[in-house]
Amino acid sequence: MQLATISGKDAPRGVAILSTGDMLDIALAARNLPGDIGDALRDGSLQRLIEAGPAALAVLGDLVEAAEAGRHAHAVLLPGARLLAPIPQPRKNIFCVGRNYAEHIAEGDRAQNQKVGVTEHPVFFTKPPTSIVEPDGDVLIFPTVSEAIDYEVELALVIGKPGRNISPTKAYDHVFGYTILNDITARDIQRRHGGQYFKGKGLDGSCPIGPWIVTADAIENPHDLAIGLSVNGERRQDGTTADMIFDIPTLIASLSEGLTLEPGDIIATGTPSGVGYAMDPPRFLKDGDRVECRISGIGTLSNTVRAV
Amino acid sequence: MQLATISGKDAPRGVAILSTGDMLDIALAARNLPGDIGDALRDGSLQRLIEAGPAALAVLGDLVEAAEAGRHAHAVLLPGARLLAPIPQPRKNIFCVGRNYAEHIAEGDRAQNQKVGVTEHPVFFTKPPTSIVEPDGDVLIFPTVSEAIDYEVELALVIGKPGRNISPTKAYDHVFGYTILNDITARDIQRRHGGQYFKGKGLDGSCPIGPWIVTADAIENPHDLAIGLSVNGERRQDGTTADMIFDIPTLIASLSEGLTLEPGDIIATGTPSGVGYAMDPPRFLKDGDRVECRISGIGTLSNTVRAV
Repeated sequence: MQLATISGKDAPRGVAILSTGDMLDIALAARNLPGDIGDALRDGSLQRLIEAGPAALAVLGDLVEAAEAGRHAHAVLLPGARLLAPIPQPRKNIFCVGRNYAEHIAEGDRAQNQKVGVTEHPVFFTKPPTSIVEPDGDVLIFPTVSEAIDYEVELALVIGKPGRNISPTKAYDHVFGYTILNDITARDIQRRHGGQYFKGKGLDGSCPIGPWIVTADAIENPHDLAIGLSVNGERRQDGTTADMIFDIPTLIASLSEGLTLEPGDIIATGTPSGVGYAMDPPRFLKDGDRVECRISGIGTLSNTVRAV
Repeated sequence: MQLATISGKDAPRGVAILSTGDMLDIALAARNLPGDIGDALRDGSLQRLIEAGPAALAVLGDLVEAAEAGRHAHAVLLPGARLLAPIPQPRKNIFCVGRNYAEHIAEGDRAQNQKVGVTEHPVFFTKPPTSIVEPDGDVLIFPTVSEAIDYEVELALVIGKPGRNISPTKAYDHVFGYTILNDITARDIQRRHGGQYFKGKGLDGSCPIGPWIVTADAIENPHDLAIGLSVNGERRQDGTTADMIFDIPTLIASLSEGLTLEPGDIIATGTPSGVGYAMDPPRFLKDGDRVECRISGIGTLSNTVRAV
């Protein structure tokens, strides 16, 4: 299933995207459903749907099936609604992973004249909710703050089932679905704050997410996805999620050691090679650039760069 | 004014602490107030009070004055309610600052045989909401995850007025108030994830906050506060907020460059010297330890360490 969030009159609305491209408004489709699952679906937010667990998702699956068969036409909206980030206001910062593809590590070490190589443990940092950008929304450049704004296409997981100390063998049970995240980074700022990534990764307009969440059942193997990024149509990143150093079960196990993951948590899994700062000479994003992130089985996340 | 959050039957409740030690339930006290401010106060959460701005705080000040004068006795609760963290569920990770006191930097460099010294820019990282511990709640040790759990008493700011690119001269206009935060840290984990602090600072049970927020008007000079910590009654940290390298206006200005701060955001400002890992030999926290953080003008935040 493809689940998205669109702008609504009063509040964002969760929708399921049908095979026709039409959108099924989840709250409307669930208007007559009894019980806790009905309450959860009528809330209309993907956050609440995810918290409601697998039974709620199964009920939504039935509603989608009915809509596909034309039995819920009144609950189907026309295409053209504006997409928001699938979870527009997550309840905490987005978890991110650095240095998780060998060629990206090599290009970074080369560009910085260092030999850090592969770390023994995953490199975790976060991006605040204020950094989130919707599909087709603007990636921001603040010229007085940084002129070294760079892109990083990443596969992002959305956590469904809560847990702490999750074993690698159980990790996929905790994944609700997958989406695309562009970990926009101010390279100059990333390095200057005592080496902690947070500030350089946390600027407003630095975290496009979307265009939707593809539920876990619809992705046969998340480590067999083509992942790429282009700037103004020029291919810059072109990899496969098979090349992650720390795979998804390892990331979930490592992150959840002594740290509870909750429904709706987002975890970005790192970027392949081809980032702008590692080019010779470096090529940073500039006002008006069109950035497209693609992951096979999910879709395309497009954004425009705006200097403000 | 001292503002706290206590456990309620259905949801946490915001209270003002009177000079007698009694607590004024904010939602109850505001039950007959008209308008938006009445609505905001009746919500009963400090988050909503902070979002409602200075006018709402002034109205609450009037209610407190009336209660102190005995004119609202029915809205005064008896002492003995359980305190929660003042903002039990902040809407994003807590912003933190590392390496902000010269003697703490020196002890750390000594313990690690390095010469990093003072960084040119503040060192920012975050702690997730899942790490928060209430006053008198348990700091957790997961023996299978880390046995190098350490303490760090810190002055924490709560942001009132939202802003981006805040100038140092306007910074204090954005501060709603102050509280105490203990930045519990797993020292082994802090270093092993490619040097990014997040994982070692983000474990469950690693972020006691409280016991209350003291509003900004009640703290004459936040850079003239005694700040200390004891373990089982033994004084370990003993400093003054006058010794911060990057002062509060500088921290707010630097953090808000290109990054919007929002009402209810919490910013911990770094710890003075005396942490356990820098002792020779290092002394980490252990099951049953009682940790007390004190900041003059605010109060005492006490917690017990529990191995789980």
